[in-house]
Amino acid sequence: MKKIGEQSYFLQKPVNICGASAIVGPKEKEGPLHSYFDQCLEDEFWGEKSWESAESKFVKETTNMAISKSGIAVNQIDFCLAGDLLNQCIASSFGLRESNIPYFGLFGACSTFVESLILGSCLIDGDFATNVLCASSSHFCSAEKQFRFPLELGNQRPPSSQWTVTGSGATILTKDGTGPFITGFTPGKIVDMGIKDANNMGAAMAGAAEDTLIRHFKDTGTKPSDYDAIFTGDLGYIGKDILIDLASSKGYNIKSNYTDCGVMIFDKEKQDTHSGGSGCGCVASVFCGYIYKMLQKKEYKKVLLIATGALMNSTSSQQGESIPGIAHAVSIKI
Amino acid sequence: MKKIGEQSYFLQKPVNICGASAIVGPKEKEGPLHSYFDQCLEDEFWGEKSWESAESKFVKETTNMAISKSGIAVNQIDFCLAGDLLNQCIASSFGLRESNIPYFGLFGACSTFVESLILGSCLIDGDFATNVLCASSSHFCSAEKQFRFPLELGNQRPPSSQWTVTGSGATILTKDGTGPFITGFTPGKIVDMGIKDANNMGAAMAGAAEDTLIRHFKDTGTKPSDYDAIFTGDLGYIGKDILIDLASSKGYNIKSNYTDCGVMIFDKEKQDTHSGGSGCGCVASVFCGYIYKMLQKKEYKKVLLIATGALMNSTSSQQGESIPGIAHAVSIKI
Repeated sequence: MKKIGEQSYFLQKPVNICGASAIVGPKEKEGPLHSYFDQCLEDEFWGEKSWESAESKFVKETTNMAISKSGIAVNQIDFCLAGDLLNQCIASSFGLRESNIPYFGLFGACSTFVESLILGSCLIDGDFATNVLCASSSHFCSAEKQFRFPLELGNQRPPSSQWTVTGSGATILTKDGTGPFITGFTPGKIVDMGIKDANNMGAAMAGAAEDTLIRHFKDTGTKPSDYDAIFTGDLGYIGKDILIDLASSKGYNIKSNYTDCGVMIFDKEKQDTHSGGSGCGCVASVFCGYIYKMLQKKEYKKVLLIATGALMNSTSSQQGESIPGIAHAVSIKI
Repeated sequence: MKKIGEQSYFLQKPVNICGASAIVGPKEKEGPLHSYFDQCLEDEFWGEKSWESAESKFVKETTNMAISKSGIAVNQIDFCLAGDLLNQCIASSFGLRESNIPYFGLFGACSTFVESLILGSCLIDGDFATNVLCASSSHFCSAEKQFRFPLELGNQRPPSSQWTVTGSGATILTKDGTGPFITGFTPGKIVDMGIKDANNMGAAMAGAAEDTLIRHFKDTGTKPSDYDAIFTGDLGYIGKDILIDLASSKGYNIKSNYTDCGVMIFDKEKQDTHSGGSGCGCVASVFCGYIYKMLQKKEYKKVLLIATGALMNSTSSQQGESIPGIAHAVSIKI
């Protein structure tokens, strides 16, 4: 077994990441990472008639861009692994329906992108694939409509709420290449902290992030300083602070080299997003846009990427259920 | 690469299937397969306050039963792969939140169960796991409420509509064992036939089933008679007939040894289900209840199981979108 410790895994041959592409919306264009994204749109509809169609177009265009950048012919891509936040993951299935690539739909809420990197890496390392396309998306307007209130209501958002990123990230994992490389992973477990406030996802997911982070350190015998940077996506400001405290209570000080994709993507002072960004498209676009480029530039040599998801829906919250979270981690080096 | 032909795969060592368990609802209890299911409930709420909670209980109890039957300790299960039809797959995440098993959520609509068998087999054959739990569920009441109309409306259903199965199936895949074994798979591609009628899912998914079936035959050099039985799940009566015609037009006569789980689970004459059963729980419960036991009894020696999913949601249909389908196939032998 390719296992390290209790529940972490290494890849026999590190899996190459190439063609990473990120396309985002107008609010993300105003944020501090705008210059790292491949394309920033002015129009949230992107010429489509609905936000749902627009989100599908994000998936389609971002995956096409990733394929194009990678230089790999579409018919050489063995599998596509993708998912999103829309009911029944329609952004992915409609965005990829013309791709003609064998498709495995995933749902890990905002953890989906890293879930796709893990399963894609396993398919390659297990000799089932040479090239795997991984993608995730989210859209502020389609998410607000589906999970909260119609935008037309102009509803107030509580300070703990996060702003769903309009954007998509896609990348191709390949057997061979010059890096950056995925070297291993720690899969997430469902962790329910009993949080019931659907406007405080950061708090609901922080326990899952802690569980995966601490298991990762223990399994692999690593410590926070072994990584140039540790990223979660997307705990936002509140969840980030909780995770720092939870990790500290277990003896791990992550304060100096840890941040969250939801914290990074918007400007705290100039952009009114309350607790920061969220959504399947947040960690996907920040990884494919920013982190990947920083790895290519050798600004980072080794990073830990932990995507967190809230495994609820609007019905479960209306029925008074708590919000289970999950967090999947991959370690990446140049 | 463990590839056969263009897009089919073999497992280096066939993966053992054990502990298959199926729990179904009261209507399924009236159907012809009732004696094969492990448990048939009288009460669709199963003592819960909502249909959604009841569906989570189906997942929880079915997976616990599968684990118990397998004799494998819970902490020896490396991964759980599961999914369902509810928005954001909450039946699986709430049903499995106390399991403490690393979890990968999947969404392939009604193809999810076979998707979980494929990815679970790859994790084992790729040396990432020894034991993998696979599960899917659906619930007539939660599905009608979410996808169509409140049951209280007493709405009429058109003749082409299918009846979502209330039930769940779960099984454990293991590296070693005495069979039945998964020997290989053909992953599905998204196929959109342009069907827009959300009350005719069989027609919408038949094209995807054909695509996977024909690719499977061509890739593996097999023909229909190489299998004791070929099952789809869940095309229903209409989709089944379409698939027979489509396969025939490609030169494959599957009429004599092919049927559909949605056709099998309800009695056509005595039970008013129109075009038959459907839902993630249909193929899962028919496989774990009936097909698995027939393999154990050596009534079947080699079967092809093709699960089909419709990758749409109620919003996409309301917006006039067509319904893309997908079909994943696994070959199983004793």
